[in-house]
Amino acid sequence: MSLPRPKNLIRPLVHDLHAYVPGEQPKIKGLIKLNTNENPYPPSPKVLRAVKAAVDGRLRLYPNPTAEKLRAKLAIFHGCQPENILAGNGSDEVLALAVRGFVEPAKNPKSKIQNPKLLVQYFTPSYSLYSVLADTHGAVKNAVALNADFSLPSVAELQRGGQWNFHAALTLVTTPNAPSGRGYSTAELEKLCRAQKGVVILDEAYVDFANENALKLALKFPHVLVARTFSKAYSLCFQRVGYFVGHAELIAALDKMRDSYNVNGLGQIAAEATLDDLKFYRANFKKIISTRARLARELTKCGFRVLPSATNFILAKPPLFPAEAWLEKLRAKKILVRWFSAPAVKDYLRITIGTEAEAQSLVQAVKDVIRDA
Amino acid sequence: MSLPRPKNLIRPLVHDLHAYVPGEQPKIKGLIKLNTNENPYPPSPKVLRAVKAAVDGRLRLYPNPTAEKLRAKLAIFHGCQPENILAGNGSDEVLALAVRGFVEPAKNPKSKIQNPKLLVQYFTPSYSLYSVLADTHGAVKNAVALNADFSLPSVAELQRGGQWNFHAALTLVTTPNAPSGRGYSTAELEKLCRAQKGVVILDEAYVDFANENALKLALKFPHVLVARTFSKAYSLCFQRVGYFVGHAELIAALDKMRDSYNVNGLGQIAAEATLDDLKFYRANFKKIISTRARLARELTKCGFRVLPSATNFILAKPPLFPAEAWLEKLRAKKILVRWFSAPAVKDYLRITIGTEAEAQSLVQAVKDVIRDA
Repeated sequence: MSLPRPKNLIRPLVHDLHAYVPGEQPKIKGLIKLNTNENPYPPSPKVLRAVKAAVDGRLRLYPNPTAEKLRAKLAIFHGCQPENILAGNGSDEVLALAVRGFVEPAKNPKSKIQNPKLLVQYFTPSYSLYSVLADTHGAVKNAVALNADFSLPSVAELQRGGQWNFHAALTLVTTPNAPSGRGYSTAELEKLCRAQKGVVILDEAYVDFANENALKLALKFPHVLVARTFSKAYSLCFQRVGYFVGHAELIAALDKMRDSYNVNGLGQIAAEATLDDLKFYRANFKKIISTRARLARELTKCGFRVLPSATNFILAKPPLFPAEAWLEKLRAKKILVRWFSAPAVKDYLRITIGTEAEAQSLVQAVKDVIRDA
Repeated sequence: MSLPRPKNLIRPLVHDLHAYVPGEQPKIKGLIKLNTNENPYPPSPKVLRAVKAAVDGRLRLYPNPTAEKLRAKLAIFHGCQPENILAGNGSDEVLALAVRGFVEPAKNPKSKIQNPKLLVQYFTPSYSLYSVLADTHGAVKNAVALNADFSLPSVAELQRGGQWNFHAALTLVTTPNAPSGRGYSTAELEKLCRAQKGVVILDEAYVDFANENALKLALKFPHVLVARTFSKAYSLCFQRVGYFVGHAELIAALDKMRDSYNVNGLGQIAAEATLDDLKFYRANFKKIISTRARLARELTKCGFRVLPSATNFILAKPPLFPAEAWLEKLRAKKILVRWFSAPAVKDYLRITIGTEAEAQSLVQAVKDVIRDA
């Protein structure tokens, strides 16, 4: 009796997939890690205490399946109802749910003529996960370039360009943008939202480092969701907590599709305690923003072209060598930054804002590289 | 300018979904909770120490994206390679990934004539999540009844029955079965696996309480995956760690589809420490199995018909009142058990094996109900 061949058991769609590539997490002693936009500061002592206090026999029990307390606190924080919040295993999970909940899979995702119901739309460059999520679902992708300075094209520009689809089932906007760091005003985001007929996700993973956020648009419009995460601003990457804010009907739809216990218990506890100690985090944001300004000045002096940033990282075009070569030169000095091969950003390094000391080490390493050039 | 209506933004498939209903997690003081098959014993002290020790500034960093250490330890535990392991946010996540990775979504899931590539197949009763996962993906479902005593129909019986599909893209078997508790021999599971042309998942969530497990089938056959979880036997529901063992090609396919940081960091650490202290857990399994035997004897004396169990729960048909009435009568005595409305099991209560003291409280409550009848 012949056995099935594994290759034939896997959907053709999956064969062609290229998984999202997360930034390296190397275990090198003394490495300064400025490649994955983690917060350089630890969670608040109150958060650590709350999590430690929960590590006991209760780990044997299921966590709250709807992250009830966390959603109640988030509702107060954002001035909405718990029904407007969907908690997830990091914001990556809620983004993936949105693709599956709002976009029909296509028979042939590569065909040119397509129903907008099959369409996942986003700007490039932005969070590179979006295209992976669309491919994984079998959705059709519409990737439209940001302006050359990474600003958002206006609705009129998008109309003139002719490539953008105002009826796309799902439009994803990273705001502030990654990997450029550029911030967008709520006014321009509102204009874009008003023009879209499908769901719009404003992915605000980095918004705590910006001057303004667009959360009110999620509460104002029935088709706008704002994605947030505890990972970056709230130093909680390890425990995977992210969420959507938006219309209760959209939230309820995705709620039906998620795994029943999708947010781990200690993650819920950590996120709840975080919301009880926001003062601690706001002080961190200030420190990071001030380090960002200083780092930008210093790198500019060294000949880098540093783009304006509303995030906890900067995108900077280095002098003398190609960006990819700089990646290696800095790595040799035990400083890890990130480089993307995509055409729009391949001349840049993306550098996470570390502590003041880490930023100074980076500047020193840059000076050493230039001196030895 | 008119705004979109939320209802029109959600896929029709999602409108019709009924989400999986997890067992209640009520916060009632002094409640004896025997409804969600949690382990009554806490995790090992070594596990608690390992998790507490990890609650520090490192929470700001991303967890290992591939659960590398955990998969290495699991590979040693199971006598395979890390490439044979996919770790997930509970086994629910890996089960959902399998449906999405191996089964094509259908244009019309309710149509009678269907390609087996669209088919998710399982026995009833079994883990009620399977049908939810199929619906969520838009797959076609083929639910075939177990024998009346919850034993597995033989291949010959399935052939004669004419309902079973040996070419189904995905077949899910809960083994030992839930909610009946009935164990299946590896020999009979092997015969079923040999007859199937698509992927077979042996969902062994409860297998540590059984006499044998079928893990070797996942290492022997290219189309068999075994699902395991740290939730039940290893007292770790709170932290959501489950996994598949199987052929590297199937594992690699699902690995491309999962969220990049799907297993939270403290969950990884807890699961790793668990594998370093298996002796502790094996002693728990023995205690639970011995309580199970005692509880079955006592309830039988009270007039219950208790089915044989290879799990940490029993299915038992109560005397005097309908099972649903017993649910309420026990709840009034602060004992929570589970009742399912599905026809095959609606005359039964599913009772999680608690501590020896909890089991005695249950027996006393049962006697009180009977006395007051």
